[in-house]
Amino acid sequence: MKATLIYGKGDIRIENVPDPELKDPTDAVVRVVRSCICGSDLWPYGSKEVSDEGARIGHEFLGIIEDIGSEVDGLAKGDLVVAPFVWADNTCDFCAEGLQTSCRHGGGWGMNGVDGGQGEAVRVPQAQGTLVKLPVGEDSALLPSLLTLSDVFSTGHHCAVTAGVSEGDTVTVIGDGAVGLSAVLAAKRLGAEQIILMGRHTARTDLGREFGATDVVAERGDEGIEKVRELTGGDGTRKVLECVGHEAAIDMALGAVRSGGTVSRVGVPQYDKVTAGSQFFMNNITLTGGVAPARAYIEELMPDVLDGKVEPGKVFDVSMGLDDVPTGYQQMADREALKVIVTP
Amino acid sequence: MKATLIYGKGDIRIENVPDPELKDPTDAVVRVVRSCICGSDLWPYGSKEVSDEGARIGHEFLGIIEDIGSEVDGLAKGDLVVAPFVWADNTCDFCAEGLQTSCRHGGGWGMNGVDGGQGEAVRVPQAQGTLVKLPVGEDSALLPSLLTLSDVFSTGHHCAVTAGVSEGDTVTVIGDGAVGLSAVLAAKRLGAEQIILMGRHTARTDLGREFGATDVVAERGDEGIEKVRELTGGDGTRKVLECVGHEAAIDMALGAVRSGGTVSRVGVPQYDKVTAGSQFFMNNITLTGGVAPARAYIEELMPDVLDGKVEPGKVFDVSMGLDDVPTGYQQMADREALKVIVTP
Repeated sequence: MKATLIYGKGDIRIENVPDPELKDPTDAVVRVVRSCICGSDLWPYGSKEVSDEGARIGHEFLGIIEDIGSEVDGLAKGDLVVAPFVWADNTCDFCAEGLQTSCRHGGGWGMNGVDGGQGEAVRVPQAQGTLVKLPVGEDSALLPSLLTLSDVFSTGHHCAVTAGVSEGDTVTVIGDGAVGLSAVLAAKRLGAEQIILMGRHTARTDLGREFGATDVVAERGDEGIEKVRELTGGDGTRKVLECVGHEAAIDMALGAVRSGGTVSRVGVPQYDKVTAGSQFFMNNITLTGGVAPARAYIEELMPDVLDGKVEPGKVFDVSMGLDDVPTGYQQMADREALKVIVTP
Repeated sequence: MKATLIYGKGDIRIENVPDPELKDPTDAVVRVVRSCICGSDLWPYGSKEVSDEGARIGHEFLGIIEDIGSEVDGLAKGDLVVAPFVWADNTCDFCAEGLQTSCRHGGGWGMNGVDGGQGEAVRVPQAQGTLVKLPVGEDSALLPSLLTLSDVFSTGHHCAVTAGVSEGDTVTVIGDGAVGLSAVLAAKRLGAEQIILMGRHTARTDLGREFGATDVVAERGDEGIEKVRELTGGDGTRKVLECVGHEAAIDMALGAVRSGGTVSRVGVPQYDKVTAGSQFFMNNITLTGGVAPARAYIEELMPDVLDGKVEPGKVFDVSMGLDDVPTGYQQMADREALKVIVTP
């Protein structure tokens, strides 16, 4: 079968690899119907050391179960399923607490002999815990939105949930990428009243407004903070959702939050330290968030997707086949594409 | 009257100052019955620049109302009252949310023309919002424990509350000073099952055990983290209460917390940045806490003090008059005294 491999910075290739097979009785093999490229894939795409050995990449997919191990209950061949962006047994104590990203028997896609999601098929470890059956056919128009449960919408939701966004809340969302826009949608869904989206790419912030943003701030840094404060009577917002991962973004988040408020971040941090001294302390700021346990949210979010109450799949603005994925990476890196959906 | 002034690092003096008088109709004048020295007073005592002009110091006191402004309702001359360690109107939006430390019309003791608590009397701004009446006489044996509501016990409680300590929880407390011990007591009161106290001063950790600590870890740094992990099946505790303020303490806190857990800090940070990169993010750690809005907690905590269910006043191990306060600072700085109570 064909799969996507990364050989280093800027070097994405589509190659033939062995077809996946069951290894353990808890495995399933899924034929990928839709996959996509994640903003977080752009970090290795922008920085990975060159290697002669390519590594599998991609961690978001939905597809049809083609083969299934003897110990996988509740799923069957032919089921259309979505996979969260980490696999997990969904039974250990961390999973029971909704922290499947810390599963005692889980792991990531595209590492340690596990397939990546940007391919024609994937061997899914811990299939019973990992996969969630979708009640639609593989020709459903809802596939893009259902695919976002794998990562991007669940990640935006995690950001809003850990921030504690609730009815009537004031929220700043930093970043107009697909995660930031998903965070806007999630904050709106949770009842936020004022949602200030910080971003400068008009096509994206327009979608942000459609998703629920009440204000858009194009300025950055101290000017951006000043604008948020102007929009909030000088106080900042009670919640700030940081969806970028750069140090400048987290600094802006800390500047835009109201005393007693919470900064939640789901942008993978490209920094080691956060400014959290006297001002942070005296204002009783909370810093939370982290890598999203998407698996914890899929059943909760799916009904609103099926009902059409939310359409998170609108973040996909470019669609392509597997052979074009290297171009898709470049388009996303150049910010020509917001998020690329792939039909292998 | 006499009051305590700080002239710089290591230079505490008792001097005559003008008697306080009402300035605003919202003021009261309180004759101090008990005051004390705070661990946070040791920061200026250890580092303040030398100045010819002394500054008032001290922010914890209880006493008798001797004079009262025309706009102060619900209190009267002769009432015994406790003051939280910041004054506040207790009516603004921040106060209504329980964040009196961010009151729109509040401030600190010993600054901007407001008296410090380590003196014979104090002019209390926003007296109606600030002061809480105590239902005991000034000869009550409960005065030390009631005085801790002003700061140290309320601060330990804030640390436990913001960490989200709940029934059956696992908690590490970093620091065996009066705040750390108060945090142990607060965590126990909120139902924590395992409370690991990190400290190496046996007399203090013994009081910590009396307050509810189930384990004591004397080791520091990586060794200390390792010990906490040994005591928790390798995972760390769900909550870590950081009650010191040094960078080494917050680093230890971040090393001792379980994935998905919370580090709350009430030690005034003597650092600007916290290590909060990849590991913090991948483990979904939350950093919270901050300066404690003691005023928010006084009514809630007082009944348990009056009933004798908790005896936070046990943190006072040295008692003295106002003239001896300079010695009290030195004893606390030398860790000879845990916490000094003062009868002016």
